[in-house]
Amino acid sequence: MAVNLHIPAPETILPVAGIEIGVTEAGVRKANRRDLTVFRLAEGTSVAGVFTTNRFRAAPVQVCEAHLAQPGNAIRALVINTGNANAGTGEPGLAAAQRTCDELARLLNIAPSQVLPFSTGVILEPLPVDRIAAGLPKAVAALGDNEWFNAAHGIMTTDTLPKVSSRRVELGGKTVTFTGISKGAGMIRPNMATMLGFLGTDAGIAPALLQTLVRELADHSFNRITIDGDTSTNDSFIVAATGKSGLQIDDASHPAYADLRQALIEISADLAQKIVRDAEGATKFMTVKVEGAGSTDEALKVAYAVSHSPLVKTAFYASDPNLGRILAAIGYAGIADLDVSRVNLWLDDVWVARDGGRNPDYQEEDGQRVMKQAEIVVRIDLGRGQVADTVYTCDFSHEYVSINADYRS
Amino acid sequence: MAVNLHIPAPETILPVAGIEIGVTEAGVRKANRRDLTVFRLAEGTSVAGVFTTNRFRAAPVQVCEAHLAQPGNAIRALVINTGNANAGTGEPGLAAAQRTCDELARLLNIAPSQVLPFSTGVILEPLPVDRIAAGLPKAVAALGDNEWFNAAHGIMTTDTLPKVSSRRVELGGKTVTFTGISKGAGMIRPNMATMLGFLGTDAGIAPALLQTLVRELADHSFNRITIDGDTSTNDSFIVAATGKSGLQIDDASHPAYADLRQALIEISADLAQKIVRDAEGATKFMTVKVEGAGSTDEALKVAYAVSHSPLVKTAFYASDPNLGRILAAIGYAGIADLDVSRVNLWLDDVWVARDGGRNPDYQEEDGQRVMKQAEIVVRIDLGRGQVADTVYTCDFSHEYVSINADYRS
Repeated sequence: MAVNLHIPAPETILPVAGIEIGVTEAGVRKANRRDLTVFRLAEGTSVAGVFTTNRFRAAPVQVCEAHLAQPGNAIRALVINTGNANAGTGEPGLAAAQRTCDELARLLNIAPSQVLPFSTGVILEPLPVDRIAAGLPKAVAALGDNEWFNAAHGIMTTDTLPKVSSRRVELGGKTVTFTGISKGAGMIRPNMATMLGFLGTDAGIAPALLQTLVRELADHSFNRITIDGDTSTNDSFIVAATGKSGLQIDDASHPAYADLRQALIEISADLAQKIVRDAEGATKFMTVKVEGAGSTDEALKVAYAVSHSPLVKTAFYASDPNLGRILAAIGYAGIADLDVSRVNLWLDDVWVARDGGRNPDYQEEDGQRVMKQAEIVVRIDLGRGQVADTVYTCDFSHEYVSINADYRS
Repeated sequence: MAVNLHIPAPETILPVAGIEIGVTEAGVRKANRRDLTVFRLAEGTSVAGVFTTNRFRAAPVQVCEAHLAQPGNAIRALVINTGNANAGTGEPGLAAAQRTCDELARLLNIAPSQVLPFSTGVILEPLPVDRIAAGLPKAVAALGDNEWFNAAHGIMTTDTLPKVSSRRVELGGKTVTFTGISKGAGMIRPNMATMLGFLGTDAGIAPALLQTLVRELADHSFNRITIDGDTSTNDSFIVAATGKSGLQIDDASHPAYADLRQALIEISADLAQKIVRDAEGATKFMTVKVEGAGSTDEALKVAYAVSHSPLVKTAFYASDPNLGRILAAIGYAGIADLDVSRVNLWLDDVWVARDGGRNPDYQEEDGQRVMKQAEIVVRIDLGRGQVADTVYTCDFSHEYVSINADYRS
């Protein structure tokens, strides 16, 4: 079902010096499934992350935040299980996440606080931590330099395809590599970051700068996608910068900083958009651009109202230009003083609504033509100001219902 | 598909003295379909209404508001068409709604400003007002005292069953009758009232009091239901009080006022809940009760987050007690300082989550038993205060997608 999402050729996935990855089968929920992934990071790697704003933050999210908050944290390992989210699990869940860190730290000869744990899967069920502990030695034994593709597989749940993005850029006279993976296909409306994105680079980035950067990256990528409006308990986006390329950037005045930031934004946005392309049941990839807004908040209110409307999403699924549904969503988005007579709407190049009503020149067959495409740009001008923002989303199909009615079965 | 919604026996639908109704086929969108309904109200009837807060208010909504806002308005007729919402239609839409009033006023020998027009159907398409004008004489010729059931049919769109509620109560020594109809099955998340509810009574109620009352009634009924979160452009809820019973209530100090208000709330809530029972594709009727909230706003934020979550709704469709999805929705509902360790969750009598985690005594088979029912109470205690509120909703099925992917076809 994925929309223009393809498995990359293995040779295009570049290893990142200073990052080793090992993937194994631990039987967390189902047998014969790669469900446990370990990252080992070289000494001196800077790590920063952003996490879900859901108040039911999963236990591993709470442990990650505590470990990252230590002054001078020296994170050296990540561990990710699928099959169980370890969320809504109270104190026993926290103890299980902590035990996972303890076990991996012992194997790698580091401190437990140098480990970040991640979980994804069913909520409100106890984490089978014994199975994870039993699997960790196998994952550590499997550690290798060129395992990103296996890791992209190892973190999948209802995803149909692994999501990986990789590129090499000349920056400040050095050759710098960026490789990242992401997962997620449902319960996707990230509100800080998404479950899960991991981005590695061999650029060196000072920790304070990296923490600022990771929030900016999230706002250009994972915080601009939605599948079903359901913000997960486990959203996590992590960037690790090893410095092994020889490029070291300590503050934003560095001459290569702007290019570094742009490269990071591009790869983050690609990883985030891959999640939408593989959304549960998706048949269409929609770019919802809101222009002429008075503020970012206004632009996003409208973009999310349109992106979350089940009526809009089912119309796109049906390729039915029932476009009044988009106007209705704009109208209830929450801008109390919206003057609808200034609103304009386009589907790709087709001008549908003009000054708040049907464009007299609009022909239904033109709307129909665009609606049949696999990728569609919905462009809305609010006529209120100069701010624009964009959200990426997908349609709503029979398959979404099937997948989510059957997910635990 | 409707959930415990039945067609009432005709003899249980009571006429309301002072209200005549006529229904006809005008061919607004499709032939051989009752799509035009006229109400004639006796002289002296008080009429009040509440309407959608969607900024893309349909043309008939704008005309209704203008006619009701006239000092000492003396509304004498309502006219409702299906097949076209006359929304997103700009100035030509306003002219079409106005022309509908003009034509009916001429036939009934009243002023155009004494007519309230209503439309429901597809948005962003011109209203075929000539067909409506041609149908009005037939509707007027059909006016009769006992036509509520036909009117409930005449205002249906994707509804599978007519929705009507009727009762007779002794109030202040008089026998007072209440009969109402409603329609709607999709684009239902009323935010003032819903498309469409009409409630008639032969109680006499002073206009100012009725205007206060109608808002209270909406907040106990139509403003507490949601199907898909899509607030319509055309939501309208109208109460007409003819006074023909002999009971006349001019202010809230009248000894029969409390009982009158209660009777009106009950019938309004019944009409609203019937819409949920007939929701597009619904197989379950869910009552989402939030208790222990610090304010009504908090209670409703949580109730709507749970009621709108596609993941919660598909789990109910599947009768799958994947109840962590409810916790996730509570967590992202927008209460920034929610202490999840005080949150408790029940399904009917089954205590699922206790102090923010899985209740140690919870057995999945108990959750499964409740999930298989057609009617389910989701009870959430936030542990923050004394405020409670309730929202009524439904599950999310394959049929919802089919209906909304095919609606215009």
